[in-house]
Amino acid sequence: MSGTEWAVEKEGETLAKKTLIIGGGIAGITAAQKIAQNGGAALLIEKEGHLGGNFAQLTYTFPVLADAKGIVAREIKTAQELGGIEILLQTTLESCSGEAGNFTVELRTPSGRRTEQVAAIVVAAGFHYMEPTAYTEYAYGRSAKVVTSLEFERMAAEGRLPQGQVRVVFVHCVGSRDKAKGYRYCSKICCSYSAKHAIMLKQANPEAKAYVFYIDIRALGKGYEEFIREAMEKYNVRYIRGRVAKVIESGDKLLVRAEDSLIGNPVEVEADLVVLASAMEPPQGSRDLAGILGIATDEYGFFREAEANVRPCHSSKEGVFLAGSCTQPMEIAAAVGMGGLAASEALILSR
Amino acid sequence: MSGTEWAVEKEGETLAKKTLIIGGGIAGITAAQKIAQNGGAALLIEKEGHLGGNFAQLTYTFPVLADAKGIVAREIKTAQELGGIEILLQTTLESCSGEAGNFTVELRTPSGRRTEQVAAIVVAAGFHYMEPTAYTEYAYGRSAKVVTSLEFERMAAEGRLPQGQVRVVFVHCVGSRDKAKGYRYCSKICCSYSAKHAIMLKQANPEAKAYVFYIDIRALGKGYEEFIREAMEKYNVRYIRGRVAKVIESGDKLLVRAEDSLIGNPVEVEADLVVLASAMEPPQGSRDLAGILGIATDEYGFFREAEANVRPCHSSKEGVFLAGSCTQPMEIAAAVGMGGLAASEALILSR
Repeated sequence: MSGTEWAVEKEGETLAKKTLIIGGGIAGITAAQKIAQNGGAALLIEKEGHLGGNFAQLTYTFPVLADAKGIVAREIKTAQELGGIEILLQTTLESCSGEAGNFTVELRTPSGRRTEQVAAIVVAAGFHYMEPTAYTEYAYGRSAKVVTSLEFERMAAEGRLPQGQVRVVFVHCVGSRDKAKGYRYCSKICCSYSAKHAIMLKQANPEAKAYVFYIDIRALGKGYEEFIREAMEKYNVRYIRGRVAKVIESGDKLLVRAEDSLIGNPVEVEADLVVLASAMEPPQGSRDLAGILGIATDEYGFFREAEANVRPCHSSKEGVFLAGSCTQPMEIAAAVGMGGLAASEALILSR
Repeated sequence: MSGTEWAVEKEGETLAKKTLIIGGGIAGITAAQKIAQNGGAALLIEKEGHLGGNFAQLTYTFPVLADAKGIVAREIKTAQELGGIEILLQTTLESCSGEAGNFTVELRTPSGRRTEQVAAIVVAAGFHYMEPTAYTEYAYGRSAKVVTSLEFERMAAEGRLPQGQVRVVFVHCVGSRDKAKGYRYCSKICCSYSAKHAIMLKQANPEAKAYVFYIDIRALGKGYEEFIREAMEKYNVRYIRGRVAKVIESGDKLLVRAEDSLIGNPVEVEADLVVLASAMEPPQGSRDLAGILGIATDEYGFFREAEANVRPCHSSKEGVFLAGSCTQPMEIAAAVGMGGLAASEALILSR
């Protein structure tokens, strides 16, 4: 069948009703692509001035070290070139009324307010990296040599990783698995991205020494265990089981104090840089957005799935679907899957 | 809009081309539902005599303890009642030729061979629980008191969990994270389902004592960490960090020998039942099926994704999509997501 015939067929079948997608990260972009590729119309709004979300902040993906920025750029381009997708940047949802199949939404755009009729809404608002300001014992905010994983990504992207015979300490679970100062849940991806960061450091600077303090090494699923093994065995990253108690500024160095929970002794590592793997938390303003949409959030502020296992993209309200890490910490592949599932649900309401 | 109008609209839009779905577990059922609900036609084949796959073997879901069999039955019923889905049990794929948009597939059904034209193929062949026969040191196969997690599920479903003041030992990572006798990867869900089993035991028999031997506790994502904490704190399940070295038959008891890697001492627990959390491995015959379809598998025999992160449901061949745990160990929610994504891809080829 020729390309022309396809186009004609598709034109005849174009679905009249539109889907509003809130959030231009990989889950929202995937949902928009799948809707448009199936003859639907998507209105994708993003509160920032650019698409790509948290994915666009990465240098490499994991456990396969692929060019993250290149992949995101390719997916954005695909979405921009598909006929059925309108993209509005710096745009937020102001109000929402109506019901599944027939919502009225009011948007605040840079050029003023705009009202739209949509059949379905996909919430793909992503996640936020916790600012570990509560962890004063780690000297975050006091010392410029204590950074978050997100800041480490930026340093890598800008060629600012420390050079020469330096020691870098990576600290897992900052804000995760911590009822007292953070969140009770595990953020799922920190173990893997810390291993990625240690590998990136060693690739950029083979003279560097890398230490990772962990509670449990959580490398779930195919490729992750192997990835962390590679960090240990090929790149000689030293893994120490223990929670870091304190990071002390000492001249131009940092002292990292912890208890090694395998050998039961206190350990101290002198470091030139400390990288805190801060928790994935709900997107900022998630409870306000939930209020506008009339959907439920959980105890943390993530959007609540109607049924954790087999309705992972249904919100508590008919016609409003959830995709990606705005429901819980999630790998990229799972977020893409949820984007596709949400698209298939939204398309049903667009007929 | 009335129900009648919907029906008429949908009828006019029915897509002529069919999708073949291989595997009737939750991923395949989801793909079939989403295709049919969007006006497509799905031919769902299942090699066993019933739908539901591994999900249908469970008593409860996790981390939310919901009625697994009830959920699966509901999803099967939805699929059976949708107009666009034909289900063939005890049916396998014999051959496949053609290309995306126009495959010819030959099926072996209980009533003979059947040839079909399909636009797309979704492989949702699920996973297989490894038979831990290689682990002779755990007395599996020798002692009836050493069972796999799957057998424990059956015992629970049939009301055969041990009664009275018994001790039950759960062993993580049997066949996972073990280059020597099993697979290098982590099977992702064993930590959580072992916690579920320990909770099920304590609920059925509060007098029982439960011990879990673990390497790392891997409870990733929202609800999982909390779930395992609940096992520890509310149900007093005792977690011991260490790999089990040997299970010895001793009269009518079992002796479980391990090294506690936190305190460095050998430990021995007398047990009435030992439950081995055996690895999730590729579905049986995956390499043969891949050969028939002309798609790639990975080093383990799982079907290989075209791109691990943003093309998780694309196989190495255009028009053949992958969904669920036949690509890697995966939670139910992720398998459902992939089923929806695969449906949205297959629908594009059905227009």
